Amino acid sequence: MSRGVIALDAMGGDHGARIPVEAALLAAKSGVSILLVGDEPALKKTIAEIGGAVPSGVEIVHASESIEMDAKPSQAVRKKRDASICVAARLVAEGKAGAMVSAGNSGAAMAAGLIEIGRLSGVQRPAIGSAFPTKKRPCVILDLGANIEPTAIQLAQFAVMGEAYARALLHYEKPKVALLANGSEEVKGTDLTRAAHEILAKAQIEYVGYCEGRDVFEGEIDVIVVDGFCGNVLLKTLEGFVTALKEMIEREIRSSITATAGALLMRNIFGTIKRKLDYEEAGGAPLLGLEKNVLVAHGASSVNALKNAIFAAGELVKTNLIGTISKSMERHAELGLWPKGR
Amino acid sequence: MSRGVIALDAMGGDHGARIPVEAALLAAKSGVSILLVGDEPALKKTIAEIGGAVPSGVEIVHASESIEMDAKPSQAVRKKRDASICVAARLVAEGKAGAMVSAGNSGAAMAAGLIEIGRLSGVQRPAIGSAFPTKKRPCVILDLGANIEPTAIQLAQFAVMGEAYARALLHYEKPKVALLANGSEEVKGTDLTRAAHEILAKAQIEYVGYCEGRDVFEGEIDVIVVDGFCGNVLLKTLEGFVTALKEMIEREIRSSITATAGALLMRNIFGTIKRKLDYEEAGGAPLLGLEKNVLVAHGASSVNALKNAIFAAGELVKTNLIGTISKSMERHAELGLWPKGR
Repeated sequence: MSRGVIALDAMGGDHGARIPVEAALLAAKSGVSILLVGDEPALKKTIAEIGGAVPSGVEIVHASESIEMDAKPSQAVRKKRDASICVAARLVAEGKAGAMVSAGNSGAAMAAGLIEIGRLSGVQRPAIGSAFPTKKRPCVILDLGANIEPTAIQLAQFAVMGEAYARALLHYEKPKVALLANGSEEVKGTDLTRAAHEILAKAQIEYVGYCEGRDVFEGEIDVIVVDGFCGNVLLKTLEGFVTALKEMIEREIRSSITATAGALLMRNIFGTIKRKLDYEEAGGAPLLGLEKNVLVAHGASSVNALKNAIFAAGELVKTNLIGTISKSMERHAELGLWPKGR
Repeated sequence: MSRGVIALDAMGGDHGARIPVEAALLAAKSGVSILLVGDEPALKKTIAEIGGAVPSGVEIVHASESIEMDAKPSQAVRKKRDASICVAARLVAEGKAGAMVSAGNSGAAMAAGLIEIGRLSGVQRPAIGSAFPTKKRPCVILDLGANIEPTAIQLAQFAVMGEAYARALLHYEKPKVALLANGSEEVKGTDLTRAAHEILAKAQIEYVGYCEGRDVFEGEIDVIVVDGFCGNVLLKTLEGFVTALKEMIEREIRSSITATAGALLMRNIFGTIKRKLDYEEAGGAPLLGLEKNVLVAHGASSVNALKNAIFAAGELVKTNLIGTISKSMERHAELGLWPKGR
């Protein structure tokens, strides 16, 4: 079974090449063809350490440089056009892979995507979006940090792109879209959200107005749009909260034999909840608004998380996310919501 | 034992007068003198329903109007000067109570505080702050929603007021203060945070620069400053997340006998964690920057939560929060961080 060709940035992530290599080997076993992009000698050595030769389904593509997690993205990408993340993006741009995945610096992934692949017609700024678990069905939240100070048009474009994401990837029929604000009444929000609200009121999507923080996990709204500053703060705070909560629970459990027994009896449940909350399972966040598929995985991704991200990248291709976004962006340009073209 | 005099807005909150009345009766039993502000006949009737006459330690102060939870705050307060929230604020302004507590519309509490009590010298905009549980000691986060689009000076003032809160109420010696942003490097943030950063670099507090979302629950930072838009979104999202998580766990537990047994064995732990996370225990959020003490409790407060908020208001008085804020604000005005006076 062919599951498409995915270019994997093997030098990205917090833990070096080992995790991407293992994820690539696993994904290849499941039928994905992997272009493993990075320093060839280092990658061959890592594969040998894990045990054996480069398997069929995995092809190493040499890249002589790599970009650090803390580098200034657009500068680094412009200086290092032979960095693994750029080479991977070029493979996608040239049609040699259907999508690329990187667990590296997400700003660098965006910069590489912009330089090597480019934006879809009409898109002013691509955004990072991801599906979050809720009480009901998952909710797409964007922008998670690519655009710290977007304009109203850009925010409205994120809404339209997020809506396309919910239709293409989550198969929602008429996803409900809202702007995140400090209250659901129209008088709330900032100059920015009010201006975006005006634009979205004219959009051909199920735009329901403002929602507030407490709506995020209720599951009544399918796409939640926020500026990248607040979205990034939100994402990282929730991640930190889940980690802190796990540690608190574990510490408490260790302090009591009764609770240890209780935890044993409850372990299936903890497993279920953990799976629902973990970004490991989610499989990363696509960049929305590029001409080709780029997916960023968490820098701290485990082998399993990165393998899931590779599968998720395959889904982007299969469900034609790009085509869905492109069509909706064009229709809204026709409606006069924003200027056509680049 | 006298625990001071607290004016309680008996008409605020999502559930009418019953909860404030019960909280007042409980707090009075513990030695707090309560001025119960609201519609006198209605309050007497509620007290009679609970069983008996108005007890010693509780005095009803009549207010003929009240402000709805969804009213536009400053308009409503200006139109209804005899609303319970305004009368309560006047009792504090006139020195008849040391602090006021309201579980009503927090915007209305702010408006009533500004109109009836007024700002401390030098304070441009008061903020709402609250102490959040972390892995280590609690962390003060502000602004939680009073100032949706603050200026850089206002953001810097929030930092100084939050630092005073951490010293006065939490008894931290040299609280570490950070601005919340989309990354900890100096290049991150918005024009607003960068300008506030410039001001805070000159402040006589332990200002450590930017922090990001994942630092919130780590407990290494004692005061985290953010604009009210993002702070409000963060607060409500976390509340919604905790609620959703509880529901998920309960649903899973109900679906399995083994897990039900496990949950029974773990109930002490769940209790401990719940206490750590619940705003019910926290006792509300003070408005920082007013001349007198005003504390807002959650609209959905239970009797116990509101009782804790009344005790917390007593602490504001005892620890001289206002004096600590005032002194620090004046010192920083002397340093030239912002203009003196009003």
